Amino acid sequence: MKLTNPLDMHLHLRDTPMLEFVTPYSAKDFRAAVIMPNLIPPLCDLKSLKAYKERIIKASNDSLFTPLMTLFFQNYEAKFLEEARSEIFGIKLYPAGITTNSNNGVSSFDLESLKPTLEVMSALEIPLLIHGETNDFVMDREANFAKIYEKFAKNFPQLKIVMEHITTKTLCKLLKDYENLYATITLHHLILSLDDVIGGKMQPHLFCKPIAKTYEDREALCELAFSGYEKAMFGSDSAPHPKSEKECCGCAAGVFSSPVALSVLAELFEKNSNEANLQKFISNNACAIHKLTFKENKIIELKKEEWEVEESYHQIVPFMAGEKLKFRVSD
Amino acid sequence: MKLTNPLDMHLHLRDTPMLEFVTPYSAKDFRAAVIMPNLIPPLCDLKSLKAYKERIIKASNDSLFTPLMTLFFQNYEAKFLEEARSEIFGIKLYPAGITTNSNNGVSSFDLESLKPTLEVMSALEIPLLIHGETNDFVMDREANFAKIYEKFAKNFPQLKIVMEHITTKTLCKLLKDYENLYATITLHHLILSLDDVIGGKMQPHLFCKPIAKTYEDREALCELAFSGYEKAMFGSDSAPHPKSEKECCGCAAGVFSSPVALSVLAELFEKNSNEANLQKFISNNACAIHKLTFKENKIIELKKEEWEVEESYHQIVPFMAGEKLKFRVSD
Repeated sequence: MKLTNPLDMHLHLRDTPMLEFVTPYSAKDFRAAVIMPNLIPPLCDLKSLKAYKERIIKASNDSLFTPLMTLFFQNYEAKFLEEARSEIFGIKLYPAGITTNSNNGVSSFDLESLKPTLEVMSALEIPLLIHGETNDFVMDREANFAKIYEKFAKNFPQLKIVMEHITTKTLCKLLKDYENLYATITLHHLILSLDDVIGGKMQPHLFCKPIAKTYEDREALCELAFSGYEKAMFGSDSAPHPKSEKECCGCAAGVFSSPVALSVLAELFEKNSNEANLQKFISNNACAIHKLTFKENKIIELKKEEWEVEESYHQIVPFMAGEKLKFRVSD
Repeated sequence: MKLTNPLDMHLHLRDTPMLEFVTPYSAKDFRAAVIMPNLIPPLCDLKSLKAYKERIIKASNDSLFTPLMTLFFQNYEAKFLEEARSEIFGIKLYPAGITTNSNNGVSSFDLESLKPTLEVMSALEIPLLIHGETNDFVMDREANFAKIYEKFAKNFPQLKIVMEHITTKTLCKLLKDYENLYATITLHHLILSLDDVIGGKMQPHLFCKPIAKTYEDREALCELAFSGYEKAMFGSDSAPHPKSEKECCGCAAGVFSSPVALSVLAELFEKNSNEANLQKFISNNACAIHKLTFKENKIIELKKEEWEVEESYHQIVPFMAGEKLKFRVSD
C-alpha cells in the first residue's frame, strides 16, 4: 500500500525534552502536521511560535516534514493577524479548562466579544480550529457543543471552521448540515468506545478528551472515515504523557498514537474500506479543504509485515502497546 | 448523632492478609455486615464458609460485630441448602465475568436451569442477592438487567431478591414496581457521577462496578436514601485493592469506603435529610426486611469534630482520601 503525503491534521508534540522524543515518529510517517498550541504558556505571539517551530524542525530529522503552526485563540488585533497570516495554518480555540493546558481558553461563547477577531480571521482566510466541548456531563459535552458550532457556522459563513477530534453521531450529522464546517477524526476514536476505557478494567492509556463514546457514535465516525467523506480529515490528536502521569491517581488525558497511526489505519481501511479512501482521509481531503500543496511529495509505503508495538517509547506508552500489527511503514 | 446497630448490607473483606487490615474498620462502626463470597475460589461449601467466617471474627477485634455470610450462587442440592440455611444470610449471584472474581458466575439467565435451586431458596426463605449487570455497553449494563430482575421477581414471588448496589433511575423505579425486590445503595453512588470518575482527570480510586452514572441517576438514588424509603438499605460495597492495583495500567474496580462510611453518611443526611431517615437507611429497613434482631445493641455516636481522612490505610487508598470530614465516630 502506498500513501502520498500523509497529513496529521491535529498533533501535540509538547515541548523540549519530550518534543525531541516524539517528533521523529510523526516526521518519519507524515508529510506535514498541524501542531497544537496548548503549551505552558500557550502560543500567543509570533516570536514564541517561530521558536517552537524551529525546535520541531530541529527534532524532526526529516526534511520532508512540515509543521503547520497554530496560535492559541484569544482576541487578537487585526494588525497582528495580518502579520501572523503567513506564519500560521490556523488558530485553535479551547473552551477554558476543558483539556490539557487550556486554562487560558475562552470562557464565554457570547459571539459579540469574539466577533472582531473572527471577522479578521474570515477576511484573512485563517481557519478556526475548535475543541468543542461544554462543561456538562462528560458523555454529553460534545453533543451539547453542537449549538455553539452552529452559532459560529451561521454567523461567520466565510470562516472555515474545523470541529476537532469529533466523537459523536451528533457532530457527524452537523458536519453535513453546514458548508463551512469540517472535521478531524482520530485513529483511536475509530476503534474505541467507552467500554474499552472503563468497561473492563480501567485503562489510563486509552483515556482522552473527548472521551470515547458509544458503539453507535463510533459507527458514525467510521462511516465518515471509511467512505472517504470529503469534509473529514485524519487528525491523530496524538498526545503523549509520561507513563508516570498516566498510571497514577489523577491520570492525564491523551493517547500517544503517532508511532502506530499509519500501520493501524492501513489495517482498518484494508478491512473496512480501500486504499483510495484512506488516501482521501489521510491527505487528499485536507489538501482540498485547506488548499495545501507540496513542492516535493512524500510517498509512504506500507508493507504487509507483522510487527509488535513496543510497550513504551521513552517512558511513553503508545496506543496498541504490545499488540501485533499487520502493516509496517517501510524505511 | 447516635445510630443504633448500623448495618453494612454489602461488604468485601477479601482474605488474609488484607482481611486482617480491613475488617477492623467495618467491625468498629457496624453491628453486622453481609460478607460477599467472591473469593478465589468462590465460597461454595460450608467448610470454606465457616473457616472464612472464623478468620473474619478473629480479625474483627469487636465482639459486637456479626459477619452475615453468603454463598456464591450456583446450582445447589436441596439437601445442601437445608444444611446451609442456619449458617448463611443469603446467596449472591454474579453474572459470569461481570466484576472482580466472578468468573464462576452464572452465564445464562434461562430460568429453567436455575429453577430447582431458586425454588428451594424460596421455600427455605434464603434471600437471593444479585449483582445485576449485563455485558452490554457500560452505561447501559444495569438498566438492561432490569428485564432479568423482573423475570426473577415474577417467577419467584416468594423469593426475597436484593438488587445490589443499584446505580440507575431505572432500578429505583423497578424497586417500587415489585413487592419482592429490595435494594442496597452504596455511599459512593450517592456522591459520584461518571464525571467524577473520568470527567476531569481519570480517578482510579473512584472506579467501581457498576460504574457511577448520570446526575439524574444519582438524584434518584439520593431520593430513595434520604427519604428513608423502606426497601432501600445501606450496603457500602467497600472493596479494597492495594494502591499498586489501582494506580496502574488495567486498574481494578472497587472503592474502599469502610473507614469513612458512617462519617460521610452523617454529613450527607444532616445536610439533605435527618437522623431518623439515616437510622432507617443504615439499619431499621434492613432489620425489617430480613427480620434481623440482635441480643445486644451497638450504639454508635458521631461527634461533630473535623478530621482529615488519611491518604492511605495499609497501602489502600480510601474513599475521600485527604478530605476533611465533619463527623467523627466516637471511640
